[in-house]
Amino acid sequence: MLMTVSASRKFENFSTWFDDLIIRARIADNRFPVKGFIVYMETGAYILEKIKNLLEDLLEKTGHKRMLFPLVTTEELFRREAEHIKGFSGEVFIVSEGREKGAERKLIIRPTSETIIYPMFKLWIRSHADLPLKIHQSVNVYRYETKATRALYRIREIPWNEAHTVHETLREAENQVREAIEIYEKVLKALGISYLILKRPDFDKFAGAVYSIAFDAWNPDGKVNQVATVHNLGKNFSKAFEIEFEKRDGSRGLAYQTCYGFGYSRVLAAIIAQHGDDRGLVLPPIVSPIQVVIIPIPFKGQEEEIMDYASEIKKLLEKKWRTTLDDRKDVTPGEKFYHWELMGVPVRIEVGPKEVAESTVTIARRDTLERVKVRLDELESKVEELMNSIISNLRERSIRMMMGLIGDAKSIDEVKKLLKERRIARIEWCGSVECAEKLKEKAGGEIRGERYDIAERPRNSCIVCGREAKKVVYVARAY
Amino acid sequence: MLMTVSASRKFENFSTWFDDLIIRARIADNRFPVKGFIVYMETGAYILEKIKNLLEDLLEKTGHKRMLFPLVTTEELFRREAEHIKGFSGEVFIVSEGREKGAERKLIIRPTSETIIYPMFKLWIRSHADLPLKIHQSVNVYRYETKATRALYRIREIPWNEAHTVHETLREAENQVREAIEIYEKVLKALGISYLILKRPDFDKFAGAVYSIAFDAWNPDGKVNQVATVHNLGKNFSKAFEIEFEKRDGSRGLAYQTCYGFGYSRVLAAIIAQHGDDRGLVLPPIVSPIQVVIIPIPFKGQEEEIMDYASEIKKLLEKKWRTTLDDRKDVTPGEKFYHWELMGVPVRIEVGPKEVAESTVTIARRDTLERVKVRLDELESKVEELMNSIISNLRERSIRMMMGLIGDAKSIDEVKKLLKERRIARIEWCGSVECAEKLKEKAGGEIRGERYDIAERPRNSCIVCGREAKKVVYVARAY
Repeated sequence: MLMTVSASRKFENFSTWFDDLIIRARIADNRFPVKGFIVYMETGAYILEKIKNLLEDLLEKTGHKRMLFPLVTTEELFRREAEHIKGFSGEVFIVSEGREKGAERKLIIRPTSETIIYPMFKLWIRSHADLPLKIHQSVNVYRYETKATRALYRIREIPWNEAHTVHETLREAENQVREAIEIYEKVLKALGISYLILKRPDFDKFAGAVYSIAFDAWNPDGKVNQVATVHNLGKNFSKAFEIEFEKRDGSRGLAYQTCYGFGYSRVLAAIIAQHGDDRGLVLPPIVSPIQVVIIPIPFKGQEEEIMDYASEIKKLLEKKWRTTLDDRKDVTPGEKFYHWELMGVPVRIEVGPKEVAESTVTIARRDTLERVKVRLDELESKVEELMNSIISNLRERSIRMMMGLIGDAKSIDEVKKLLKERRIARIEWCGSVECAEKLKEKAGGEIRGERYDIAERPRNSCIVCGREAKKVVYVARAY
Repeated sequence: MLMTVSASRKFENFSTWFDDLIIRARIADNRFPVKGFIVYMETGAYILEKIKNLLEDLLEKTGHKRMLFPLVTTEELFRREAEHIKGFSGEVFIVSEGREKGAERKLIIRPTSETIIYPMFKLWIRSHADLPLKIHQSVNVYRYETKATRALYRIREIPWNEAHTVHETLREAENQVREAIEIYEKVLKALGISYLILKRPDFDKFAGAVYSIAFDAWNPDGKVNQVATVHNLGKNFSKAFEIEFEKRDGSRGLAYQTCYGFGYSRVLAAIIAQHGDDRGLVLPPIVSPIQVVIIPIPFKGQEEEIMDYASEIKKLLEKKWRTTLDDRKDVTPGEKFYHWELMGVPVRIEVGPKEVAESTVTIARRDTLERVKVRLDELESKVEELMNSIISNLRERSIRMMMGLIGDAKSIDEVKKLLKERRIARIEWCGSVECAEKLKEKAGGEIRGERYDIAERPRNSCIVCGREAKKVVYVARAY
């Protein structure tokens, strides 16, 4: 019953469906003449802001201080942590500083901000009394991606939130990793997005991290969409940036650090891709620019009464919900339905002569397109109920879809077959880089890691080499 | 009575006072190793966010759509409008795009976004039905300032909001200029900042504008602080970027445009500089991270009752105000007073044994340091009253200060004398560039323009050349 709305276009030809939808629903315009730099139009910019508010609110409630750090770092700072520079040096944008002759110094635009923030941490941290230090910023980072760009998914200007924390002990850093994961889960759940939380294999961890946990959201084309990552940095960066402090026992030591990032544009992409259907966007109420749209169904001779009634309903609902009365005269109700379905407005209210006569309204929900008639005096409670039901339904059908996408594979051929069907393969793996590489070469998918949230124990042998399997891991193509 | 608090340090040695205060109150850290790029710490980032919310809320209520545009433009786009490129080409940062040999193209980091936004306007605008188009974004812009940098005032990474509008007629563009000025006035008034609204002389208008209106806030060192500007662009940019539309009569024509910018870091600087005193920040309640701080005055044997009473007060006030109970055990009340005065918290509540016994509290306001005792049952209304009184007082004393800074000058020497006294000179001027240049050379101040909000008519002759005066203008040194 819940999947009654057709979404075949997005599953059959995801790219066309997506590219067409984001411009028509005024999410983003990809025609700016610099590759990988997109323009967020009003719907997209609005949703990004709402996602940002949701996340920042949770970060601040858990003691993360908002700060703002510069766009650029120096070459010297950028080179401090050996693994980090290896991982990022190929994909940074370089700025020439200064017009004067001889004054030229190269600046590096942040691909992420460790090398900008940690020199300041060194200045600020003196003793255990300064710890834990937890900061966050919502900014753009810049990566010169050599792979093909795709609006929202793979771009060169990336809007995200990054948080950075410093701790006295390893245990505290571990707890911080868990707190970060909980925060990200809360935001993604509020948006109805489903994902796998995966501990990345060592060869795929963040450059400079001890280990990395990632949120991979499913996508209709089978390529997973990494929306967030959480890293335990151990002492790798505190060593490179000399972040030392006086411990409780009076001795001095290096601090433990974590950092984590949440990709706003990729989360926006996940909202569109996971919930959308052939009619357009299907927005979670919490981020929808308009939550309720009221459409009068005109009837000759009763235009005024119908409009008055519609205005009355607007007054009733706008106290709680972002409500619009579409009173355009030159557009038919049918065209209005079509437009607001495209825009993903969660609840539509229709009022015509019948509704006026009966003191009722007809309510349609965007996710299932179901319509019900309700009495005016129960309208407010009904809308509230519907909004809750919509986000629950979005969440549930997204999880169901993801579960359906995952298939167990016992051989490279089975992995290949699943990937071809745009699905995600679960396999048993020995843990070697060689097998991962062989699998990627033969089946075309990457080992994304093992589940972090639940323990899945291997029972058989590595599907590549036949040796003892050490891990149950997920294999997918990825953005 | 209202100026009882000493602010002599900020008037006598503004730079030292300011630089010292912004780091101690955790506004910003100026030690990042790239000149002109500063780190906004928690107090600064918090206040910036609040200012942003105030402004964006007003922009969105008046129909400006939030959008987000790229950081960079191409050289070709940057060169389209002749005056604009002349004005900005000397101060842009250049990015090299691409690692691959031969693929290098120069990208220009926005010093402002006309050349990034207007190519999109060309794509979006077809007919009068698409107008007016009003958009805004809060982003950083980058200008390679060759003058000495100063934290918040003159930096190379500048956080601001820029709005851009497109209209059918000149009259509509004129009305838009007025709307923009009203919006900026509302925000600055909510922050108690006072300023002159000046129409800049032609030689000092925005590169590419027909005319420019600027908000110059006063500063303790006499150098005015331009916090916002509003520009009527006429058809200059629509011509260069081919923003054409089908008019109501079916013919085609170029659109009229305006743009305006509001400098967040300069407004933050004005809050600090205009309201602060020798004890530290004095924050307008609306932007203060903490609005009420409760300080228990411990008394032997009654520690618990006092703390319970303080918690009760916190519960009462935190429904409406951002309230903190400073229950640190290892810090004396005197040290707490000192700390929260530095941080500019508008209202401090002291509770000791006497207050517990009487069911009263002692309230101190930060702006005047006055203390009053009030009954517990009138506390909420008293705090509300106090917050209103604080912002009114800040606004009034700032206006009074500005009025005192302005002096009439009848000769170049009188201008020189006023500027030396760190004041602003009002003069009569013939309107010629030669006289403006001569004045600048001899007296060291710039002609900032004539009042936009009130008409001041010249009665005598130009103080430089003695010819007929055309305008009453203000002369000051400027950041």
